[in-house]
Amino acid sequence: MTTPNDPVQTARRLAADWATTAVERDVRGGTPKRERDALRDSGLLTLSIPREFGGLGASWSDTLNIVREFAKVDSSMAHVFGFQHLMLATVRLFSRPDQWQPWLEQTVRQRWFWGNALNPLDTRTVATRVDGGREFTGMKSFCSGASDSDRLIASALDDSGAGKLLIAAIPTDRAGITLLNDWDNMGQRQTDSGSARFERVQVADDELLLDPGPLSTVFSGLRPLLAQLTFVNLFLGIAEGAFEQAQHYTTHEARPWFKSEVDQAVDDPYVLAHYGEFWAGLEAVRALAERANALFDKAWNRGEQLRAEERATLALAIGSAKVHATRVGLDLSSRLFEVTGARATQASRRFDRYWRNLRTQTLHDPVDYRIRELGEWALKQKPPTPSFYS
Amino acid sequence: MTTPNDPVQTARRLAADWATTAVERDVRGGTPKRERDALRDSGLLTLSIPREFGGLGASWSDTLNIVREFAKVDSSMAHVFGFQHLMLATVRLFSRPDQWQPWLEQTVRQRWFWGNALNPLDTRTVATRVDGGREFTGMKSFCSGASDSDRLIASALDDSGAGKLLIAAIPTDRAGITLLNDWDNMGQRQTDSGSARFERVQVADDELLLDPGPLSTVFSGLRPLLAQLTFVNLFLGIAEGAFEQAQHYTTHEARPWFKSEVDQAVDDPYVLAHYGEFWAGLEAVRALAERANALFDKAWNRGEQLRAEERATLALAIGSAKVHATRVGLDLSSRLFEVTGARATQASRRFDRYWRNLRTQTLHDPVDYRIRELGEWALKQKPPTPSFYS
Amino acid sequence: MTTPNDPVQTARRLAADWATTAVERDVRGGTPKRERDALRDSGLLTLSIPREFGGLGASWSDTLNIVREFAKVDSSMAHVFGFQHLMLATVRLFSRPDQWQPWLEQTVRQRWFWGNALNPLDTRTVATRVDGGREFTGMKSFCSGASDSDRLIASALDDSGAGKLLIAAIPTDRAGITLLNDWDNMGQRQTDSGSARFERVQVADDELLLDPGPLSTVFSGLRPLLAQLTFVNLFLGIAEGAFEQAQHYTTHEARPWFKSEVDQAVDDPYVLAHYGEFWAGLEAVRALAERANALFDKAWNRGEQLRAEERATLALAIGSAKVHATRVGLDLSSRLFEVTGARATQASRRFDRYWRNLRTQTLHDPVDYRIRELGEWALKQKPPTPSFYS
Amino acid sequence: MTTPNDPVQTARRLAADWATTAVERDVRGGTPKRERDALRDSGLLTLSIPREFGGLGASWSDTLNIVREFAKVDSSMAHVFGFQHLMLATVRLFSRPDQWQPWLEQTVRQRWFWGNALNPLDTRTVATRVDGGREFTGMKSFCSGASDSDRLIASALDDSGAGKLLIAAIPTDRAGITLLNDWDNMGQRQTDSGSARFERVQVADDELLLDPGPLSTVFSGLRPLLAQLTFVNLFLGIAEGAFEQAQHYTTHEARPWFKSEVDQAVDDPYVLAHYGEFWAGLEAVRALAERANALFDKAWNRGEQLRAEERATLALAIGSAKVHATRVGLDLSSRLFEVTGARATQASRRFDRYWRNLRTQTLHDPVDYRIRELGEWALKQKPPTPSFYS
Repeated sequence: MTTPNDPVQTARRLAADWATTAVERDVRGGTPKRERDALRDSGLLTLSIPREFGGLGASWSDTLNIVREFAKVDSSMAHVFGFQHLMLATVRLFSRPDQWQPWLEQTVRQRWFWGNALNPLDTRTVATRVDGGREFTGMKSFCSGASDSDRLIASALDDSGAGKLLIAAIPTDRAGITLLNDWDNMGQRQTDSGSARFERVQVADDELLLDPGPLSTVFSGLRPLLAQLTFVNLFLGIAEGAFEQAQHYTTHEARPWFKSEVDQAVDDPYVLAHYGEFWAGLEAVRALAERANALFDKAWNRGEQLRAEERATLALAIGSAKVHATRVGLDLSSRLFEVTGARATQASRRFDRYWRNLRTQTLHDPVDYRIRELGEWALKQKPPTPSFYS
Repeated sequence: MTTPNDPVQTARRLAADWATTAVERDVRGGTPKRERDALRDSGLLTLSIPREFGGLGASWSDTLNIVREFAKVDSSMAHVFGFQHLMLATVRLFSRPDQWQPWLEQTVRQRWFWGNALNPLDTRTVATRVDGGREFTGMKSFCSGASDSDRLIASALDDSGAGKLLIAAIPTDRAGITLLNDWDNMGQRQTDSGSARFERVQVADDELLLDPGPLSTVFSGLRPLLAQLTFVNLFLGIAEGAFEQAQHYTTHEARPWFKSEVDQAVDDPYVLAHYGEFWAGLEAVRALAERANALFDKAWNRGEQLRAEERATLALAIGSAKVHATRVGLDLSSRLFEVTGARATQASRRFDRYWRNLRTQTLHDPVDYRIRELGEWALKQKPPTPSFYS
Repeated sequence: MTTPNDPVQTARRLAADWATTAVERDVRGGTPKRERDALRDSGLLTLSIPREFGGLGASWSDTLNIVREFAKVDSSMAHVFGFQHLMLATVRLFSRPDQWQPWLEQTVRQRWFWGNALNPLDTRTVATRVDGGREFTGMKSFCSGASDSDRLIASALDDSGAGKLLIAAIPTDRAGITLLNDWDNMGQRQTDSGSARFERVQVADDELLLDPGPLSTVFSGLRPLLAQLTFVNLFLGIAEGAFEQAQHYTTHEARPWFKSEVDQAVDDPYVLAHYGEFWAGLEAVRALAERANALFDKAWNRGEQLRAEERATLALAIGSAKVHATRVGLDLSSRLFEVTGARATQASRRFDRYWRNLRTQTLHDPVDYRIRELGEWALKQKPPTPSFYS
Repeated sequence: MTTPNDPVQTARRLAADWATTAVERDVRGGTPKRERDALRDSGLLTLSIPREFGGLGASWSDTLNIVREFAKVDSSMAHVFGFQHLMLATVRLFSRPDQWQPWLEQTVRQRWFWGNALNPLDTRTVATRVDGGREFTGMKSFCSGASDSDRLIASALDDSGAGKLLIAAIPTDRAGITLLNDWDNMGQRQTDSGSARFERVQVADDELLLDPGPLSTVFSGLRPLLAQLTFVNLFLGIAEGAFEQAQHYTTHEARPWFKSEVDQAVDDPYVLAHYGEFWAGLEAVRALAERANALFDKAWNRGEQLRAEERATLALAIGSAKVHATRVGLDLSSRLFEVTGARATQASRRFDRYWRNLRTQTLHDPVDYRIRELGEWALKQKPPTPSFYS
């Protein structure tokens, strides 16, 4: 592993490489082993880890900017990269320092890639109390980045009583864990967001994130906001990637329509209008995303001092950004064909992957309820209720 | 070949069969030989041919309704079916009775499937005068339905002088014709809309559609309008198919969002709002498409009596229908995921194919210029200028 | 009163006259006495009354077309004209032949103009049983066309028990009725849609519409649908009027923008695009409105044979038309300024009245719930529940 | 005149006062003399004037924030306030220090209110060379804030040769100037944006802004950008005012729709969705406006060092903000009625004034060409060509 002096440049180098195979890997799906290993080698898996634990000590803004950078060319890799840091934030926020500090250090030393098996809406995995810990048994869906991972964040419902959500940090190769590698969806095809089966998986007490535990304090409530903000930056990156692709095609390959009275497609008044709309849309998302990223940094730095009102302000800022990122992205990735034309639908181009990736990932949670949440604030000053989705 | 008593029922039977393999054939692409042969066997290739020439004598409305019916489950088959009848209309409108009448009769007797190699915007194929006819040489793109066809409508630019478009009706297996079978696009994957190469292909004088020739009279100017109207019905059918798929999934598989306070997804107020929008949108397209279909029948029946104003009225009615069919279809086929949810993105469902099919086919000619055409009428009472796209 | 041979021509003559004062009357508000009397004189108040009772015997389609015709230049007069016929339909549908037949005959003979005091959502007026009838006491809002009317359709809640809605047809000058002439709203300014006060107003038993009574049969359930359909035609007419105004202004007065590289505003590509959108939008509304009008005629002619499914189909057709009429109209009446320019905002033009009129009247009942109703049908095949708003 | 310690608080005090009469003044139109004098008394007319010349030394961001603050309740006063500072920037940017410095000082000392008679697209006023200066003769339209002003920025076309635009700073009461007080438009009713007549108005050489002259350097090219940015903040303020009005009405006066199954309008799922959209829209405009305001400060502080690329970046940021401010504002001010209901259309409320004000002012220059400008940048990296509108 190298220690990159300039993470942005490192990220761009990786992105440039991934861009050359993104189309073929979109066809193939599955686990992008070569790219994941390049990410391991790059050192960027330690990007958000503070320098005191051996990481690159980047701010969340800087980390999310790299999610966005990756997403321009490969939104699957952007996703698992973002989730690496989301998982690290999860242990940081939900567990004791004597748990998370060694985990962060080992992540650096052993180049751990973290995967996700947390989906709190999938309640099929149950935790039973056993000597010295718990036993996890059951299925879990949407386990992004679990394949080829070294550590997993896994959740189960406690069977003793109120069905509390227990979250654990465990080695992916722990006995009893089977990753089904069954992710074959129309978008985000190399995120490995398939299913995991847990069969009497032993989880030690000190692998459980119980103190302070999930969403137990205002500060620990930043975790779902980081997830949402990761999506914002991911969606923005995809949209920017689609824009760049379109811009290149219109400039170099598109033909003017025979009724347009212009010599080049770039001079067509309607083509220009579409690009103007694209730009205005992207600018809104950029302004909102950058504002939300900066607010997140600020909230994070407040630590346990973070007040509920500050978290609410941040949640709303992320919510507004996500609504626009969703809409602008879907519009742009569908309308891009109107500025490129019929020949741009060749399968070998896979220009549809921007729409497919966005359409898939924007369904993580419904935009209708994000808007309702904004409406409750706007109309009734009711702040978002913290949950794994707000 | 059977002679179907009830073409609609026959079409539904075919559609029901095609539906069972539509997903797998969308993956595969290529020529749907089995389905094309089923269409040959069904007799529906003669649907629009008047009874006096042995056909089923259906009106254009009835023919287009079957394009729409097919498009609900298989928009590639709908396309080549629609183009069969468009090619028959082409010979009917552009050639002499002693040419088209035998061609129609042979289409019935020999179960000819007609393919398209007409693309007037691709000017690479040139016709050179030779003894008794012309020699076609060059490339032609977007030759929908040419593979596995029996007869081709092919065009070339006359090399003598003004670059006039010559159109011919010839056997697909004529020496010198190579179909490249290179259509591999993100949508309409089994339309075989690839390229053809013509190498000194001999075209006899009586295979040329010279009298009255393309767009030479108001009546012959119905040909491009039939093409546009075929797309309207195709787009509507795709949108209706997407709607039916979504409706089935929301009813039987979708889960209510955990914040929705309803027990079933079908009772979610926002899900209902999306369906209300879908319905209102589809109803507008249906009303406009049905009106345009009826107007087309009327115009067709006027024959050479058809006046330019009548054609203009029809062209505008088709144009309005196409604008709405395009937009409603694209919106519905993208938004359907918001009423089905993340699990509906499984590749095995291929719910994205509605959007991919529509997105691909709606690029045939730019909707921006269709709107401009409507605007020129609305503002200046300038009727659409007849062309292969108006 | 003349008996117009050609109601459409009569309507156009009236409209042409009203157009000359529409702007000044929009400023003034209040009761358009001169125009109402011209309408009385024209005979069009009897338009929908069957010939056997002395009326002009027009179909509902024809009647609604004249609502639309009037609305192009004066949507207040269009409204009260439409409501005249809605009130006539109300007595026809809710009362016994020995009640409604004489009322229709007297409407012809005495040139009655009917006003509305029915608002079922305003429950402040109560009916107390007295000898030979009821006594109405309380307030009623949104009494369109009550001022200067000869007969009123008034409603009250029965105080005996379940709060049933009682509807009566009574002379406007009946003792105890005070019209407050307090309608002063931003749009529909001459509809006199203000408040009425009822103080112990005597209503005889045979003035009550009890048999079959409101919404008691499928056929009588056409009344609210006629109200909704009247709005559809009203909205369409306003939008068409706005379009005509814009088209005239762009043609004769608008200046090309200095960056547009065209000599006249009518050649600006973006101006043309707006007009194309206007046209496509209007065409959708026209197709849907005309289909709904025709369906209404058919349903009306079915009389008490009308089945619930037929009514549901009609209700949905009207609902779709209303959604589009609302949206297209609001969009067009706001966007018209983008094709006319800053100078078109002169108060003396009152080009804003199209938007103000539409915006006001489109709030009669919320479009969100119309869409929900369509959604319940689309998703669950649940037909609209008959009410005064469905 | 007081010297306000806290301009924001002063502005809020003024706004609170103006709010109480805004409705009645919207009816009346004409010159808001009392409010203009209150503005003179407040000292805020000197807000942007540097402290060294006796002004309050506020940044442009701070000045524009007060435009926005005023616009929430009174967009006419916001406009003339914004134009006061635009006129001061005009002399600062287009004239010599020995001209603009005394003008700024006198603005402080003599409480000058500056009016606008600059409209460069109205070419009817011509400047003829006379001894010691020029003579201006002709008409000029859209002279916002000219009535009751002390100084005017007026323009004329030089008659000697190339029709160069000459701009002068002159006393409003200079002989030969007649303000026609003919502004009576549907919105921005108290901006006095009417016509001025110049009859041989003497303009001395040192009243002409010739050095460096209009748009002659990159820095002086900030003037039109400040005009555009003033509109951005004005539009945002209007939209925020409409939002606040709606929010108050829905909370305190709106009634739940009878089908909504909620007890209060604020709990209606569709009402909440509208508010969520309003919020997301406003947030986008706020983020873009604040970014553009900050960029403007930075550009201004660069002075003559400002580079063309920096100006272009700023112009694009302002353009994106303006597109969104226009659209979000128009949408919100029209849709607000859907969350308030039919009774909110009472003329006495004048809730339509938000739409009328925005609709009027957003026509200053066409949004279509702003979008095209963004498109030229996005597609071709062509920066906006500096002009009085870019």
